[in-house]
Amino acid sequence: MDQEYTSQVLETAVTELSRLPGIGRKTALRLALHLLRREERDVTALGEALIRLRRDICYCRHCHNISESDTCAICASPMRDHRTVCVVENVKDVMSIENTGQYHGVYHVLGGLISPIDGIGPDSLEIASLVDRVSAGDIDEVILALSSTMEGDTTNFYIFRRLANFDIKLTQLARGMSIGNEIEYTDEVTLGRSLLNRVPFSDSFKTN
Amino acid sequence: MDQEYTSQVLETAVTELSRLPGIGRKTALRLALHLLRREERDVTALGEALIRLRRDICYCRHCHNISESDTCAICASPMRDHRTVCVVENVKDVMSIENTGQYHGVYHVLGGLISPIDGIGPDSLEIASLVDRVSAGDIDEVILALSSTMEGDTTNFYIFRRLANFDIKLTQLARGMSIGNEIEYTDEVTLGRSLLNRVPFSDSFKTN
Repeated sequence: MDQEYTSQVLETAVTELSRLPGIGRKTALRLALHLLRREERDVTALGEALIRLRRDICYCRHCHNISESDTCAICASPMRDHRTVCVVENVKDVMSIENTGQYHGVYHVLGGLISPIDGIGPDSLEIASLVDRVSAGDIDEVILALSSTMEGDTTNFYIFRRLANFDIKLTQLARGMSIGNEIEYTDEVTLGRSLLNRVPFSDSFKTN
Repeated sequence: MDQEYTSQVLETAVTELSRLPGIGRKTALRLALHLLRREERDVTALGEALIRLRRDICYCRHCHNISESDTCAICASPMRDHRTVCVVENVKDVMSIENTGQYHGVYHVLGGLISPIDGIGPDSLEIASLVDRVSAGDIDEVILALSSTMEGDTTNFYIFRRLANFDIKLTQLARGMSIGNEIEYTDEVTLGRSLLNRVPFSDSFKTN
């Protein structure tokens, strides 16, 4: 549209929307025209929810999970086991693990994985603060729950070396066949690992 | 995430984002976590742009295009030919035609196409107001620029019948091969129409 006849208000909304990841100018325009057809109340609710999101959410000073105060609901809860710490890459992984309903300890969010190719070294991550938590002596077990990728394995190994001299149990997530998968379609590396890490049959009925 | 440990602010933002068309809860969460990493200033700009969009944009009382006042920039412009009206389905089509740089008249936005199967009859559209504009007697030409679909053709024909008794030129967009297309890959209906509507060779150099 010729600049002369563009609505500046529409133009600004489209530009701001198209800064979101995965949203180009065409999608941004489609979203903006959709919002024009919605109730003013609904659009105001959306705009204010986004402003509040960024303004009111901060990070927990213990575990670096998102929080609305300096200690998150999980770290503040007396119902959780504060002597077990699960190390995860990011906030989404906390949600994934919470959704399993199988974990009752606390977390430590690294904020990424070691990846020299992306210029992310151990100092860019919350690893020093993890070592501090462990050296304070209140922790029995650290569970490494990182992705099963090269970066995840590198980070696992780095943390393992940093925590090797502490008297704690250091575990990592079990790797093996996905539940519901068929042997025929499981890749050979995973299948090999599943064989090596086989567990007593009675353990398959174990619940937390 | 257990309700107990969810951030209510995050939950609200995700719910509001997931009301947008084509955005499910997973994408909404990804967008929300992206916004958390952005500068607070940028996120506030996005939120306010959306609120202003819905609050400040209204529809032109002449052509029903979006506008920031009751007469849009195109209808208000003395540079445009106000005796030529281009009838389009929606606001996006106005933008598409403006982007060609080939049109200098004004518009009439119908707000949809006649589609009995979706319950959209002529009375749901801005057809009566088009007839009013034409009967006021200030218009020489009405260009029907609707999609080349069953609904577009139905709407074209309905408008043609409503305007048949007025002393105006009634035209529609040329239909034929797309520029850059090969004969071999042009569908036979389009190719047939291109043959029927062939134009003098010298006209291919015509500019507006």
